[in-house]
Amino acid sequence: MGAMSSSLTVPARPDDPMTADQPASRVLVLGGDGYLGWPTALHLSRRGHQVGVVDSLCRRQYDVEMGVESLVPIATMERRVQAWTEVTGLAIAAYVGDMTDPDFVATTLADFRPDAVVHFAEQRSAPYSMIDRAHAVYTQVNNVVGTLNLLYAIAEVDPDIHLVKLGTMGEYGTPNIDIEEGFIEITHRGRSDVLPFPKQPGSFYHLSKVHDSHNIAFAARTWGLRATDLNQGIVYGQETPETTLHPDLSTRFDYDAVFGTVLNRFVVQASAGYPLTVYGKGGQTRGMLDIRDTLACVELALSNPAAAGEYRVFNQFTESWSVMDLAQMVVRATGDRIRIEAVPDPRVEDEDHYYRAAHTKLLDLGLMPHLLSESLVRSLLAVAERHAARIVPAAIPPTVDWRRTGSRVGAA
Amino acid sequence: MGAMSSSLTVPARPDDPMTADQPASRVLVLGGDGYLGWPTALHLSRRGHQVGVVDSLCRRQYDVEMGVESLVPIATMERRVQAWTEVTGLAIAAYVGDMTDPDFVATTLADFRPDAVVHFAEQRSAPYSMIDRAHAVYTQVNNVVGTLNLLYAIAEVDPDIHLVKLGTMGEYGTPNIDIEEGFIEITHRGRSDVLPFPKQPGSFYHLSKVHDSHNIAFAARTWGLRATDLNQGIVYGQETPETTLHPDLSTRFDYDAVFGTVLNRFVVQASAGYPLTVYGKGGQTRGMLDIRDTLACVELALSNPAAAGEYRVFNQFTESWSVMDLAQMVVRATGDRIRIEAVPDPRVEDEDHYYRAAHTKLLDLGLMPHLLSESLVRSLLAVAERHAARIVPAAIPPTVDWRRTGSRVGAA
Repeated sequence: MGAMSSSLTVPARPDDPMTADQPASRVLVLGGDGYLGWPTALHLSRRGHQVGVVDSLCRRQYDVEMGVESLVPIATMERRVQAWTEVTGLAIAAYVGDMTDPDFVATTLADFRPDAVVHFAEQRSAPYSMIDRAHAVYTQVNNVVGTLNLLYAIAEVDPDIHLVKLGTMGEYGTPNIDIEEGFIEITHRGRSDVLPFPKQPGSFYHLSKVHDSHNIAFAARTWGLRATDLNQGIVYGQETPETTLHPDLSTRFDYDAVFGTVLNRFVVQASAGYPLTVYGKGGQTRGMLDIRDTLACVELALSNPAAAGEYRVFNQFTESWSVMDLAQMVVRATGDRIRIEAVPDPRVEDEDHYYRAAHTKLLDLGLMPHLLSESLVRSLLAVAERHAARIVPAAIPPTVDWRRTGSRVGAA
Repeated sequence: MGAMSSSLTVPARPDDPMTADQPASRVLVLGGDGYLGWPTALHLSRRGHQVGVVDSLCRRQYDVEMGVESLVPIATMERRVQAWTEVTGLAIAAYVGDMTDPDFVATTLADFRPDAVVHFAEQRSAPYSMIDRAHAVYTQVNNVVGTLNLLYAIAEVDPDIHLVKLGTMGEYGTPNIDIEEGFIEITHRGRSDVLPFPKQPGSFYHLSKVHDSHNIAFAARTWGLRATDLNQGIVYGQETPETTLHPDLSTRFDYDAVFGTVLNRFVVQASAGYPLTVYGKGGQTRGMLDIRDTLACVELALSNPAAAGEYRVFNQFTESWSVMDLAQMVVRATGDRIRIEAVPDPRVEDEDHYYRAAHTKLLDLGLMPHLLSESLVRSLLAVAERHAARIVPAAIPPTVDWRRTGSRVGAA
């Protein structure tokens, strides 16, 4: 692309302790064209790392299948990478290919020689996985085989590569006890052991992440790999200091019932003047975090790598919110101009339950959370209003019913 | 096959409470051409059930790939089914196809209309799954997708079909606390819940069973399916009252390092006059059971079906044995004519550990165990001696190394 020698218009941030104290590392961001992968790649690039992105571009194909688009327009991956170099003078290497292709995975690692890989490259929608049998099987094969190929490639190319894998808080479900970070000490009939925290995932997507977690833990134990599993909460927000540098650097903003996360969906409903649709009682409580905290957490994991043979789990969220409390905050942020409407819950889940989950490990490493506030909601409302003409209201009501084995969705 | 009207030379066993008290049910045995699936099908047929077997015949292809054969010759599936009718007058329906083909699974269930399915149709060797990346991926895709297809087919054809699924005690690993049957009550920070027992499986095969267990539990909860997960120990033995009725009814006897289970392997080594190769210290302790108890356990699960929406786990074994204790019993059964040789453990596992696992649920349902004895070992030695000319000694030493990502095995 020839832009490597262009002037550096945006310097690396001067408050960055890493550029001062730590050598830059080579980081491959798998799923680097996605909602979180792309901003993560930019963040790490600006912080001085040599960054490569790997993506099959399948997320864009899901849009075509669902008949919906990101509320905020996004540039092609080729243009994104070019724009990044134009704006910052920094280069990002791009690899287009599928993680389920073992040769692609191995040759990409051998070519880029990363110190770490950040693995976002999975189908990440629970409703998408619950559309029907084909989508359930696709989700589990895509996610599990991609991760297996990655584990083998790391073991064969360089077992010292630190795997930072995106899992989900949804792996735990909603047990009636406090959720710990990956492991729990159990005392039973007079003996004790620290064991993997029991998992009760609520969709074939969430199940695929549980399968991954077990596979990764085994590979770390058996081959001495270094692995960090980030059990992430629900992410909200769309802007980061890097994506706002140029319109072609924007990341996705999904508000549809299949790929949109709850707060983003409420914001778009509010912006379009529709009632906020709460599933069931709204007592469903989940860990949540700001998109900027996702980037910070990934960086903290990279800066403090797992030991050889270590499989560790960080619960990556900053606050717990119930769906109803979120809806009420959005109502307040609009000056009470909209209302809340309960709709039947399309998911099979507890609508009212105990929820308390530990999330201290990333704080201990130095995470400074951006907590959710009405002003953050108003900034999201402003994003939605800028792109109001692109809202397709029909995309918001739930279409995938957990209780059925086949739902009609999207363009079909 | 026209044999339905032949004379009934072997009656249903008169001591069978089921034929007296319970209506015959329609049972489909998936993996019905395999080591355990075939004897299970015969057992259920003789006990008055209408039985169908489903198999892709892939186990026979693994033999070709590994360059080894069952020690006891086995007839083709077509001939087996025909022989069963000739000997007993009972018919078994046979379906040849692959569980990863969703249309085959759904049409087979719709055609046979079972009351229950017994699901043995998985790649079941830990070493096979650890040969290399391709075999790991094959094992997980084959097992997980086959089971997903089955769950969808049950939900769509008839959600009342009772799924009896073969899992493994190896799902639990070797925790430092007592292993319970599927679930454990955990008290933590003043609160309690009954949660899935934490899993620490030791191979990509064992992991595939953990993935299945999570998927099945979810399907039961979400779609109201009835599911029994039989977490089975290591099975030994080769003869059942049905398989010995005619040579063409024999089931497999695997003694090779990839598919042979530990006691069968020791028996063949002893029979051929080789030392018994114990991996490492030999303190590895596992739940074990006689092949005849497998049949009884499956039948007990079928006779006492899970409730709608229930996912339950039975630990299906009768005794715990360490590898070294097994070897010493085989030495004694030969009159101390052979010796034990420690070889480096090709697996990554604790060679000396705590092991105590509950197994009361099947006993409570009426299981009368066949415990392991020197006389049982001597009967296995007699089987091995009858077929001594077929032993390929080169097939016995371990070839698959857990610590490597690629091992050379078999005919290659």
